[in-house]
Amino acid sequence: MTTKVWAIRAAEVDRGGSAVSSQELSKYLNREYVEMREAILEYLKHDLFKPKYDLSFYEFRDLTQERLKHLAKGNFISCFDHINNPGRFFAGMEALTYVDYSITIKCGVHYTLAGGAIALLGTRKHHNKYLPLLDSGKLPGCFAMTELGHGSNVMGIETTAVYDHARKSFVLNTGSDLASKVWIGGASQYGRLCTVFAQLTVGGDYKGVHVFVMRIRDDEGKLCKGVRIEEMGHKMGMNGVDNGRIWFNNVVLDRDSLLDRYASIDEQGIYHSPIKSIPARFGAMVGALSTGRVCIAQSAVDACKLGLTIACRYSSDRPQFGKRKIGSYLTHKRRLAPGVAQTYALHLIMIQLKGLVNDRHDPKKIHNLSSGLKAAATWTRVDVLQKCRECCGGMGLLSENQIGGMIVDMNVDVTFEGDNTVLMQQVVKGILTKGITKPEPIQVRNYSTEELLQALKYREDVLKYRLLQLGDLDANQDTCVDLGWAYADYLTAENFFKEVQRAPPALRDTLEELAVLFALEKMERNAVFYVCDGVIDADGLEKLRQRVNDQCNVVSGADGEHLNILCEGFGIPEHLITAPIAKGWRDFHTSPEIGAKM
Amino acid sequence: MTTKVWAIRAAEVDRGGSAVSSQELSKYLNREYVEMREAILEYLKHDLFKPKYDLSFYEFRDLTQERLKHLAKGNFISCFDHINNPGRFFAGMEALTYVDYSITIKCGVHYTLAGGAIALLGTRKHHNKYLPLLDSGKLPGCFAMTELGHGSNVMGIETTAVYDHARKSFVLNTGSDLASKVWIGGASQYGRLCTVFAQLTVGGDYKGVHVFVMRIRDDEGKLCKGVRIEEMGHKMGMNGVDNGRIWFNNVVLDRDSLLDRYASIDEQGIYHSPIKSIPARFGAMVGALSTGRVCIAQSAVDACKLGLTIACRYSSDRPQFGKRKIGSYLTHKRRLAPGVAQTYALHLIMIQLKGLVNDRHDPKKIHNLSSGLKAAATWTRVDVLQKCRECCGGMGLLSENQIGGMIVDMNVDVTFEGDNTVLMQQVVKGILTKGITKPEPIQVRNYSTEELLQALKYREDVLKYRLLQLGDLDANQDTCVDLGWAYADYLTAENFFKEVQRAPPALRDTLEELAVLFALEKMERNAVFYVCDGVIDADGLEKLRQRVNDQCNVVSGADGEHLNILCEGFGIPEHLITAPIAKGWRDFHTSPEIGAKM
Ligand SMILES: Cc1cc2nc3c(=O)[nH]c(=O)nc-3n(C[C@H](O)[C@H](O)[C@H](O)COP(=O)(O)OP(=O)(O)OC[C@H]3O[C@@H](n4cnc5c(N)ncnc54)[C@H](O)[C@@H]3O)c2cc1C
Ligand SMILES: Cc1cc2nc3c(=O)[nH]c(=O)nc-3n(C[C@H](O)[C@H](O)[C@H](O)COP(=O)(O)OP(=O)(O)OC[C@H]3O[C@@H](n4cnc5c(N)ncnc54)[C@H](O)[C@@H]3O)c2cc1C
Repeated sequence: MTTKVWAIRAAEVDRGGSAVSSQELSKYLNREYVEMREAILEYLKHDLFKPKYDLSFYEFRDLTQERLKHLAKGNFISCFDHINNPGRFFAGMEALTYVDYSITIKCGVHYTLAGGAIALLGTRKHHNKYLPLLDSGKLPGCFAMTELGHGSNVMGIETTAVYDHARKSFVLNTGSDLASKVWIGGASQYGRLCTVFAQLTVGGDYKGVHVFVMRIRDDEGKLCKGVRIEEMGHKMGMNGVDNGRIWFNNVVLDRDSLLDRYASIDEQGIYHSPIKSIPARFGAMVGALSTGRVCIAQSAVDACKLGLTIACRYSSDRPQFGKRKIGSYLTHKRRLAPGVAQTYALHLIMIQLKGLVNDRHDPKKIHNLSSGLKAAATWTRVDVLQKCRECCGGMGLLSENQIGGMIVDMNVDVTFEGDNTVLMQQVVKGILTKGITKPEPIQVRNYSTEELLQALKYREDVLKYRLLQLGDLDANQDTCVDLGWAYADYLTAENFFKEVQRAPPALRDTLEELAVLFALEKMERNAVFYVCDGVIDADGLEKLRQRVNDQCNVVSGADGEHLNILCEGFGIPEHLITAPIAKGWRDFHTSPEIGAKM
Repeated sequence: MTTKVWAIRAAEVDRGGSAVSSQELSKYLNREYVEMREAILEYLKHDLFKPKYDLSFYEFRDLTQERLKHLAKGNFISCFDHINNPGRFFAGMEALTYVDYSITIKCGVHYTLAGGAIALLGTRKHHNKYLPLLDSGKLPGCFAMTELGHGSNVMGIETTAVYDHARKSFVLNTGSDLASKVWIGGASQYGRLCTVFAQLTVGGDYKGVHVFVMRIRDDEGKLCKGVRIEEMGHKMGMNGVDNGRIWFNNVVLDRDSLLDRYASIDEQGIYHSPIKSIPARFGAMVGALSTGRVCIAQSAVDACKLGLTIACRYSSDRPQFGKRKIGSYLTHKRRLAPGVAQTYALHLIMIQLKGLVNDRHDPKKIHNLSSGLKAAATWTRVDVLQKCRECCGGMGLLSENQIGGMIVDMNVDVTFEGDNTVLMQQVVKGILTKGITKPEPIQVRNYSTEELLQALKYREDVLKYRLLQLGDLDANQDTCVDLGWAYADYLTAENFFKEVQRAPPALRDTLEELAVLFALEKMERNAVFYVCDGVIDADGLEKLRQRVNDQCNVVSGADGEHLNILCEGFGIPEHLITAPIAKGWRDFHTSPEIGAKM
């Protein structure tokens, strides 16, 4: 592969006399944990992280396991950061999506879920005993929450843990097949440690869902007593993760197995918890585990960055129908430019969300925002990557061109860490309680910044008010999903416009163009609402369509070449943009090995 | 695998006293070539067609090749049917999508594209020489149109064929790498015969694109002189098809290699064609090849049938949050019921389209309709299958549950046989020429059948009028895509309501409910248009939302159980619904082999 410097660089593009610097953009976007981020990206140059497309099921799993081990050696990601420095933890996980989603989720299960549960729901004794072994990758961890019968409804799980004071132990049982743990990442082959969700009973009293830490395999890799595990099977993607199914049959766990930050059992066998009600206790435990959701949302945003970088480069370089570049067609700009705007917008609000987690802000706010953004970011990813794929024509389907593989591997992200449809309902429950009076009618005339923000806020407020009036959320679940979106969209836009103010002056115009496109396109998506509510009239709508078209043209440049600068701003290093079409598709050639080579 | 009879059958569901019979529905839907269809479905019980998920790249290709060979033995599909009985040809291809998309496309390349080009662009000498060998599967065929530099723009291809009268031969050359044939299905490994598109020059005169038939490999499988072939590489899906890249270097072809239905060269080396202009000749040749597009559209519809059958069964059987079935949630009904309506609607209009092709109807009409429906059907498939997947939660990701695999393998269908965005522009060019006056304003009050149809037609007419006024199609490509949709939607709805009248009385209510849902949901999708054009007002829109919700409830039944009857109407035999979740997910269990088993 001959490494080429990508042709269309910031400096070479005449941007009406004031070319924005992609380096400056990147500095602004990637302003956190800069050194560590760079060190990881550099570390990922190792051969082990080079893409491989034709591995068998088990070969891919072994490779993913090797990758985890090698990453651990780099000492970038530490479970202690859940407690000490969540922001650093997030930064450590971020680059992985550029490599492959299996390794991202493999690390997610190990460091974020297993490590996070122990760090955040356990106490010092658990930290000391387990976290160093997780950090070094020596004790592969799993997180066993979901059961065959109970996915979205975690409170309904059936695995039981009964405290036996005579033995100072818990006895764990699966009971029926419906209570077997399913989809448990890492369980099928490599996992040795497991954090397990179960319904606790102490002295005959039911105490609700609690989390335990236990070994499922010994140091030789043999299953522990009472543990049965089966393979979940071949998935449509992400087969590098060894998802398994677990049954517990009278598994005996010592008293220290209970992760006891929110509830403990004393020497006398008496149960203690600072939180009295069972649902509130459950809420506190699950609320502590928002890190996973944040990571999934961030991965979705990062996947959009990579997909757009590839699709934009190709589109501005590929002619079709004479000399005309496909990036010059309006349908192309319409498909790519809003994606770039959404990706900037989501990246920037994610910085805020990670900041809230880092600062241990109000858990309820974090729950609402992380749920809304997880759903919004992953659904946006579905849309953006599919558009990127289609924009690349046939070339988008080649595994080497990266986009297709992400579509396949990441399909799960709308489902795990909270199914999006369910999350949006939860967001609504979280934000509706505040009560709201009927919003004053507004009108949008010029699509100015103030008007745009006002309009997005207005939609959220009206939908809240409407749902409160309607009362029956169940019969209006469709509107609940709409409100979840409206909530996420407004906060994302509001933050984006604030960023425009915060940013270095040289970047402001560019960021503002993107923020405007983001807000305009959201208005257009929800134009029905705006027209019906009298915010805009029929003429205003035609104006809106034209404004979106204009804005797509401005943001894209004639052949889409401006989009390349914006994508360079994402700061993905060349060695992780392995797609041949992103480097000059004319040189495309194939080799006897599978997969195209440059 | 214990075979179970699916629990919720037509007779068991109380449909307000008048349960519709799924058998009757199926009879109505699958009314063409009934015996052959049944014979093929029965033939597909062979072990060779059982799903396999963990094959290596080359193993999967071999399996796909074996499948093609075995199918050929069944004598269901004949290239002569392109000439004698196109309807029968379509019926022969249909069932394959239920097995796997690689075998569908493998057959598509061999029988539809290679066979179709020879049958429809060639003459008796070509038919006699090649078609029997294609029918028997003895001479694997390819279709080489696309080049690295020229995908959507076929007229721009660069491969040259120069007629050398001294040798009474054509000399074929690729020239630059940009003119190499790419993506050619069957070329990489098994293909021996190839239909090739090239720019013809006779006696120094340029004659435009013509199609030639030639051997690329001999009977031992060795490459023919002057032919170079490389592997295209690993794809995100559909890896059972061996796509390859071809270069021609001074390949000499005898005079009979020219498929000479539309143009020929006589003994004296003089070129003859009944069609004088080069673009018109090109149009006639390409126009003759609409079969492929029809098959791709049909496959998309069939994939929706299978995806919905699985998702609906699972949803009406899976509780989440207590005893409540997920199929009972409004968000579920909203995601599945419109998909069922769209699938019925598209299936029925496809019968009409296939009829037009069968009757050799006006090529222009066939071109417009097949282009519009190909784009509409494949984009609908993207949407429907993704929703089916999400509705099944984690289970939707398991390869054995079929939906995920279809999403992966079929992603290409929006791109090949005409990229959808490009096709929609062509539709617009095809239908705009007719001219149109400003449509009279209409109002929709009750969403009656007449009003619904009128509304869909109105949208098409207004968009046509608007584009004619705007004039500049290029600057309004977004509106062109909208018009393409409006055109397809109206024709689909119009036909659906006609089918309601044509259908046996016992089916009419059910079909009408679906037709109404189809039209309502299309109106809702385009509500912006309707509100802006004053067709409905703000209150009317809220009424529309409620009507769609109500209609989704009616069509679905309380837990989505009615959807199962409707899906049974698709008539997919149980042995091709291999997804364990469609048979009773509680029995789900895994085995040491990869893939879950019942
Ligand atoms: C690849 C993969 C890896 C995973 N890894 C892990 C892991 O490591 N550990 C772990 O514990 N779990 C894991 N999971 C499980 C994951 O968390 C669950 O799949 C997820 O919570 C959804 O649960 P479910 O699949 O049972 O779907 P369900 O909860 O059954 O939902 C199915 C459908 O019903 C809908 N639905 C459900 N309730 C409602 C409602 N109230 N209103 C409207 N609609 C509703 C949903 O929108 C969805 O479309 C993994 C899953 C996958 C697929
Ligand atoms: C798996 C696979 C199998 C295939 N099998 C065969 C085969 O057997 N034989 C064969 O000959 N070919 C085959 N093809 C090629 C296929 O027909 C082409 O991929 C298709 O025609 C699109 O061409 P392209 O990929 O070059 O995309 P391009 O034409 O370069 O289009 C790329 C993008 O640009 C956009 N675009 C292009 N022109 C315009 C315009 N005027 N206005 C707006 N947007 C535009 C498109 O919408 C698309 O998004 C296959 C392709 C694939 C992926």
